[in-house]
Amino acid sequence: MPSTTPQLRTLDHPDRAEIRLEGVLHALSDPARLQVVHYLAGAGESSCSAIDLAVSKSTSTHHFRVLREAGVIRQVYRGTAKMNRLRREDLDALFPGLLDCVLRAYETRCVQRT
Amino acid sequence: MPSTTPQLRTLDHPDRAEIRLEGVLHALSDPARLQVVHYLAGAGESSCSAIDLAVSKSTSTHHFRVLREAGVIRQVYRGTAKMNRLRREDLDALFPGLLDCVLRAYETRCVQRT
Repeated sequence: MPSTTPQLRTLDHPDRAEIRLEGVLHALSDPARLQVVHYLAGAGESSCSAIDLAVSKSTSTHHFRVLREAGVIRQVYRGTAKMNRLRREDLDALFPGLLDCVLRAYETRCVQRT
Repeated sequence: MPSTTPQLRTLDHPDRAEIRLEGVLHALSDPARLQVVHYLAGAGESSCSAIDLAVSKSTSTHHFRVLREAGVIRQVYRGTAKMNRLRREDLDALFPGLLDCVLRAYETRCVQRT
């Protein structure tokens, strides 16, 4: 009888070379996803529940998946928690300055609206 | 009998203050629309037909409309031609550096694929 190996819960991520500009821009083109990216840029690795999105759990899960599949964030399980971090190194290598420009624009917009 | 005024064919555009970061990023998140923006950045005001998009006429019209409604381009009629130009001044004022970062990323990607 073959030995069983522990089931690893891993999630699919594009390699750096597979990350597409259009996909990244699409992933960033939503207020909730911009909020996630801005949060992770400041806080580093965080659980999904740490980010207070004003959307349902399933919508939140969808947004994180869009960000992951576009190559904007990396998601890993640590115990039962799904942890998220920005793929800043990959994004900066592929699209220099883009993430910082978007984050600055997001912050400026937030300041204007308060 | 009231005098008739000539019918002006104008198109709706958002004011600068109405342009939203999410809308601009969404407008830029498509290969055909990126191609349009890149073309206009180099060529200045151009007719829709000057830009060789590999899509149908109706799809092309849709892409130009998405760009216009997001505030990325301005479209005006000159005679029967619809002319397009980038709203670079508005975009640079609202989101400094964003358009240039996206254009650089687009060019890099094009070079990598040739």
